[in-house]
Amino acid sequence: MNGAESLVQTFVNCGVEVCFTNPGTSEMHFVAALDRIDGIRPVLGLFEGVVTGAADGYGRMAGKPAATLLHLGAGLGNGFANLHNARRAATPIINVVGEHATYHRQYDAPLASDIASVARPNSVWMETPEDARDVAAAGARAYAASMSAPGGIATLILPADTAWLDADAAANPVDFDAPHTVDGTEIDKVAAALKNGKKSAILLRGRVLLEDGLELAGRIQAATGARIMCDTFTPRMQRGAGRVKLERIPYFAEQAQEFLEGTEQLILVGAKNPVAFFAYPGKESWLTPKDADTLILARPEDDGMAALEALAEAVGAPAQAPEHVALAKPDLASGDLDADGVGRAIAHFLPEGAVMSDEGATAGLFTNIYTETAAPHDHMTLTGGSIGQGLPLAAGAAIACPDRKVVCFHGDGGAMYTLQSLWTMAREQLDVVTVILANRSYAILNIELMRVGAENPGPKALSMLDLHNPDLNWVKLAQGMGVEAVACSTAEDFNKAFEAAMSRKGPFLIEAII
Amino acid sequence: MNGAESLVQTFVNCGVEVCFTNPGTSEMHFVAALDRIDGIRPVLGLFEGVVTGAADGYGRMAGKPAATLLHLGAGLGNGFANLHNARRAATPIINVVGEHATYHRQYDAPLASDIASVARPNSVWMETPEDARDVAAAGARAYAASMSAPGGIATLILPADTAWLDADAAANPVDFDAPHTVDGTEIDKVAAALKNGKKSAILLRGRVLLEDGLELAGRIQAATGARIMCDTFTPRMQRGAGRVKLERIPYFAEQAQEFLEGTEQLILVGAKNPVAFFAYPGKESWLTPKDADTLILARPEDDGMAALEALAEAVGAPAQAPEHVALAKPDLASGDLDADGVGRAIAHFLPEGAVMSDEGATAGLFTNIYTETAAPHDHMTLTGGSIGQGLPLAAGAAIACPDRKVVCFHGDGGAMYTLQSLWTMAREQLDVVTVILANRSYAILNIELMRVGAENPGPKALSMLDLHNPDLNWVKLAQGMGVEAVACSTAEDFNKAFEAAMSRKGPFLIEAII
Repeated sequence: MNGAESLVQTFVNCGVEVCFTNPGTSEMHFVAALDRIDGIRPVLGLFEGVVTGAADGYGRMAGKPAATLLHLGAGLGNGFANLHNARRAATPIINVVGEHATYHRQYDAPLASDIASVARPNSVWMETPEDARDVAAAGARAYAASMSAPGGIATLILPADTAWLDADAAANPVDFDAPHTVDGTEIDKVAAALKNGKKSAILLRGRVLLEDGLELAGRIQAATGARIMCDTFTPRMQRGAGRVKLERIPYFAEQAQEFLEGTEQLILVGAKNPVAFFAYPGKESWLTPKDADTLILARPEDDGMAALEALAEAVGAPAQAPEHVALAKPDLASGDLDADGVGRAIAHFLPEGAVMSDEGATAGLFTNIYTETAAPHDHMTLTGGSIGQGLPLAAGAAIACPDRKVVCFHGDGGAMYTLQSLWTMAREQLDVVTVILANRSYAILNIELMRVGAENPGPKALSMLDLHNPDLNWVKLAQGMGVEAVACSTAEDFNKAFEAAMSRKGPFLIEAII
Repeated sequence: MNGAESLVQTFVNCGVEVCFTNPGTSEMHFVAALDRIDGIRPVLGLFEGVVTGAADGYGRMAGKPAATLLHLGAGLGNGFANLHNARRAATPIINVVGEHATYHRQYDAPLASDIASVARPNSVWMETPEDARDVAAAGARAYAASMSAPGGIATLILPADTAWLDADAAANPVDFDAPHTVDGTEIDKVAAALKNGKKSAILLRGRVLLEDGLELAGRIQAATGARIMCDTFTPRMQRGAGRVKLERIPYFAEQAQEFLEGTEQLILVGAKNPVAFFAYPGKESWLTPKDADTLILARPEDDGMAALEALAEAVGAPAQAPEHVALAKPDLASGDLDADGVGRAIAHFLPEGAVMSDEGATAGLFTNIYTETAAPHDHMTLTGGSIGQGLPLAAGAAIACPDRKVVCFHGDGGAMYTLQSLWTMAREQLDVVTVILANRSYAILNIELMRVGAENPGPKALSMLDLHNPDLNWVKLAQGMGVEAVACSTAEDFNKAFEAAMSRKGPFLIEAII
């Protein structure tokens, strides 16, 4: 058994089932080990941003890490942006980053770079075994680190010789930090505050955004009158018919400020105080009203579910939340296709149990609103703000949940960053329907250009935000990677295409020309 | 004048003419400034690896930096791999990386990350102005740092408020380190060594690989009998008919060792001692024969041209090199297309003064050999080993050299990493002809899997090196981004398509199915 085999077997022992890969020469022994040791499904991505984004989607849905296999510092660099998004989602991921053999590093060969410097910003844990016999134990620690509450990215830098030299044996799983239990006095403090007559809002993030957590929030709301809300961008939330609905903090800072106005105390459950996504001249960064108190019910690493349950009891909440979303499918649109029409059709035909990967950006707003009352589904968003995550996120979710329909709706600008994801969807025959919202622009930047006070933009500036000239043809791009595709410019065509896509299996792309 | 305007004007004052951009909200004032200040051409890339790879191609050909405009740490991360390649090429580049406003950083907004940690591995210089009035001077220092011999990457991290707040004025260029002059005693030492009867080889890299440097090397060879050679991967070399030919060190370590065998002294001119690209079990990393002496005529930061001239004089070299490459165009192939046939046609029809961006990998070997005796041209290769550089490199070179035909030949696996480059070629109507060598595999990895001793690979391992299932269709991918394209599977078709592409202007892609 060599080091690579000991590592793969350790991952299997820990319960890792999938490895998203884009290997190079220094990872060949790991590749061979995936073959010799049963239990891990390798999934090839043709670009590392696909690999890391898919690992994020997998981890959000599976609740445990996939491994990635990346080629030295440059491969990790290509995967950086979607690791950044995954870090903001607290997704468990184990990166295996190949490195030159220990004795080869001194020579500064062309591919050598400071891998640790690229890994550090996104990693909760990082190790570089120097001996093949240390690899297995490092693998077990990597798994534990990725799973320690609230979840995070563990990066194991694997020198090639530690993969090919003899190892002793695989390692067994080691303990990791389960979510901390919140002390009863903290619960009581929040319970008392919720009864002090002040206007309260409870901001939820993490595990508590699944159905049972929302139910608890709804019960607490019923007993206390507190608003219940979530961040603009959440890693994973369950929503739609039959579930308790949260208010979502708006994206733009001034709208968020208005939204939060009047809040006298903000209760955080796995969340942080909301801040503006960007700074703008003369506008506030800190969005919580200045005279409001902040109370922390649960930190991200705490057991928010148990804390909510205890709080529900402490405030004498009813046994059930009084209000749940009623199923309300919007009417379908007709005529020229626009973002509204796309949203109506998606919400109308979305099947129960679907998983939505939402990187619709400006054009996705309608979809977002209409699906609030659609069939119950899971909703994943761009947690770190680095566009180009929606497609691989969808691919990873489809691998985690093979029996659920995955719908990815994506702005055209953002989708170009990791369009190689379509090839992986085709190869693995993933049940992902992608809707490209083709407005042929970085539409958000046209808005932002004005918002930051950059007045009277001229043609040079506007050309940098415009994706016309030439127009992208997403049907050809998809077909070029083996994914069936169709373009629609009327609502009737889109309705028909989306309905048909929902009733078949396998990857499909619809370019919605809006 | 705000900070962004002072920066753009400073770049103009320094002679920067192009900015490759992929901006976000935090860069909107820089975008607006590119509009208001004349003199810089913005070129949009739909992915940051396109932006940084194009800046590398531009810098290699122009001999001065382009600026890049990147969106915080995640945008820089997406550009990391091609910055790595540029670092290994010692290409002058100025990165402008947007950052949150100084007062906004404390809030750890979703897009916040440790930008410096991502920038450091590839940067020779890095600064973050904290005041709008410091931005212009920082810009002048960035330019100087990028131009200081031998050239490098300067990264200016630009907090959004330092871009939008008032500045005083633009800055003027500041002095940078010109190449150091090599001391005459060092020249004499090498001259004496070259006459001591030992078998010598001179390894050249950098500026000396242009025509006049090669001529000097040829003269020295004539006087001393030394071999003259270059690395496997060189940033830019002039080659073809009428020029002095160098020997190229082979890629695989054991072949390189054999190639260097018998060398008793190795003279370095801007180069380092050759090392294996990767380590392999039981094989050497250090490729210079163990008992050979290494003499340094010029370090990368030295004036290699002056040193070669002085050396030519010191060894009494003839006024002209005795041998120059004779034009020899290979016969065209017929029948089924293969890598040999592609190479023949490219070498046959390559116009004088063309610029080749070579990421042909295994399938490009024939092209590489045949073009040695083609019309005189410039040749650029993958200096840092991180695949996915050839397309953007070609785009950048075409912007630096609008009157020269650029030919990019590229393996299909590598081309997928930065295929978005095709859109930029279409938008800017760049005169780039791309030949995709479609063997539908990471062919090099099939070789490397065996070479590293990973025996009897099974179907899982092989599937990770194979790009069939589904086949990529490069004609559709190119057309999807607005680039005309054709696929060829016979030599006759390829010959005709490539000949036609050489006689027209503008972007074109040929998928060579081999």
